[in-house]
Amino acid sequence: MSEIDELRLDRLLERATAINLDAVLITSDESIAYLTGFKPMQLERFFGVVVRPDRSSVIVPALDRGQIDDAPERLDRVSYGAESDGIPELAAELAGARTVGVEEDHLIYARARALAEHGFELAPAGAVVMGLRVQKDDAEIERIRAACELVQEGLRRAFEWLTPGVVERVLNARVEALLREQGASAAHPLILFGENAANPHGDPGLRELRRGDVVCADLSACLDGYWGDLTRCATVGPASDWATSTWQVVLDAQRAANAAAQPGALGRDVDAAQRRIVEAAPELGACLHGAGHAIGLSIHEPPFLVPRWNEPLAEATVLTIEPGLYKAGVGGIRLEDDVVVRPGGPDILSNLPLELTEVG
Amino acid sequence: MSEIDELRLDRLLERATAINLDAVLITSDESIAYLTGFKPMQLERFFGVVVRPDRSSVIVPALDRGQIDDAPERLDRVSYGAESDGIPELAAELAGARTVGVEEDHLIYARARALAEHGFELAPAGAVVMGLRVQKDDAEIERIRAACELVQEGLRRAFEWLTPGVVERVLNARVEALLREQGASAAHPLILFGENAANPHGDPGLRELRRGDVVCADLSACLDGYWGDLTRCATVGPASDWATSTWQVVLDAQRAANAAAQPGALGRDVDAAQRRIVEAAPELGACLHGAGHAIGLSIHEPPFLVPRWNEPLAEATVLTIEPGLYKAGVGGIRLEDDVVVRPGGPDILSNLPLELTEVG
Repeated sequence: MSEIDELRLDRLLERATAINLDAVLITSDESIAYLTGFKPMQLERFFGVVVRPDRSSVIVPALDRGQIDDAPERLDRVSYGAESDGIPELAAELAGARTVGVEEDHLIYARARALAEHGFELAPAGAVVMGLRVQKDDAEIERIRAACELVQEGLRRAFEWLTPGVVERVLNARVEALLREQGASAAHPLILFGENAANPHGDPGLRELRRGDVVCADLSACLDGYWGDLTRCATVGPASDWATSTWQVVLDAQRAANAAAQPGALGRDVDAAQRRIVEAAPELGACLHGAGHAIGLSIHEPPFLVPRWNEPLAEATVLTIEPGLYKAGVGGIRLEDDVVVRPGGPDILSNLPLELTEVG
Repeated sequence: MSEIDELRLDRLLERATAINLDAVLITSDESIAYLTGFKPMQLERFFGVVVRPDRSSVIVPALDRGQIDDAPERLDRVSYGAESDGIPELAAELAGARTVGVEEDHLIYARARALAEHGFELAPAGAVVMGLRVQKDDAEIERIRAACELVQEGLRRAFEWLTPGVVERVLNARVEALLREQGASAAHPLILFGENAANPHGDPGLRELRRGDVVCADLSACLDGYWGDLTRCATVGPASDWATSTWQVVLDAQRAANAAAQPGALGRDVDAAQRRIVEAAPELGACLHGAGHAIGLSIHEPPFLVPRWNEPLAEATVLTIEPGLYKAGVGGIRLEDDVVVRPGGPDILSNLPLELTEVG
């Protein structure tokens, strides 16, 4: 990742101070990347960024010390050796603080307990850092667009490779390799054939592609720290009546959700816009998930476009909008694009045709 | 995954009851897989297994309900829709319990707080479930052996592809695809060239392979739920004096660590056995990490073979033992095998030759 805007530290501090936090402890890979430009590979070892008015620091295992050279200069570099679990070093960086904001959806209970035993009072601060991360700056949007371009290229190639007899697992591996060769630090193709596509979380297996299949191709890739995530569908040979009708409903649902994704709209409103359309066609299949979620440094990040999400969308949020319909034993159709929330209507970051492609 | 031994639930309950837990809440992917045979894909949605004397259950999002069919019959199936975050359903399953054991290295602070607000008292129980998971049964060992065989095949092919001019990132993508095509549910090749190999957590990039390079090839793959993780090294053309000497030191260190991996030995003892050998050769490079860690359903699981680990090894633990030496600007040599801890000495699960291969 390129140089990090140091103002992010100032803004985080300003918001933390406003809710009476003495310090913020950042622990998720993506938030660490947001503040430092360095995305750790977290296993059992502790990584964190401590942000406080007087001094801030980044704490890493000694093994990873070489990777934080490009972090903002005002962050003190702290590392710990194999004899430590990093908590004493963290406690030293927090010393003097009483209330410490944490990423409550990431910090593990063991570390929360250890901090409590050191006398710190923890408070959820996930919304503070996500409140910053949710509004993408122009450079971030361009990176998501670049990730989408890579994913589009993957989809185009995947569709070329959709010939009867190809094995689901082999095709997915081949597409993953293509994305990784092109520089994706991670890539998750989920290309499912026929009845397998009826499960939005299916697992590519030994199923061979057959004439008459519907194919649901969901590809995501992380490029230069940011994710793109798109889904298109195809039929092997002419589309069945089911596929044609379902495609049209899902397309309508996507248009409705896009139109609803306005600054100030609630997450649940975007979901409701697609849900009322897909749920009106129960004979075609079931609505098994919400309308989507935000995307950026994480492939899934808040806000989530689901019935329980009552918060308004902020301008410059990037959402992946992905309505779908799934019919057991038959298949699934999903349509997914990444869009930037803008007052004049969403800016769509991909330019793949909105069509149910015929292959084979 | 195939059928799960229901006795695992009994043993977990027995150990939990012995430390006065009223219930255990299992939340990590791998522990859920250990108890149910189903490995979730966790994003923001809650998954858990509640184990208690009177009734036990598995809780999943409605979207994943179809995937728990093969879980042990005595587990009640509980699912929740898009309008819930799963916590009310979890609280209902725990109702009546006071002290709830949790996986403290997995449960997130937000859920720990929510459970505390529901009146439950949490207690760390990671050691209870890991105490079961650490001792592999024969079927588990055979799966790790199968994963190692797949990784070996990947290493053999990778070494065939090591010709001058090949790009690091492309080679890694190609090996990843090979492992995935063969059925790996996840695969992490980390094949680094020349000076890049001096960083054990390096990132494959656009570096082309050159004559004179040392290559450090670390491959891991998850097959049927279980991981194998092996490392071998090569030189492009004849080995340099540095590579030859370093290889011999690392080989000696691996032999010493293997010999130390006896039931009852402390994790730190296994580390010390290799550390005293690699640290005696500072002119060849630095010792940047411990001797290794256990492996199984997770690629990194306790016990960790590091200076701070003071607990004794149990028989039938599977360890990956991976000493290495790293010299900035020159390269790195690491040697890694997966072994089963046995009273008569470790059973090595791979049969790759212990040699510094010359390629190109």
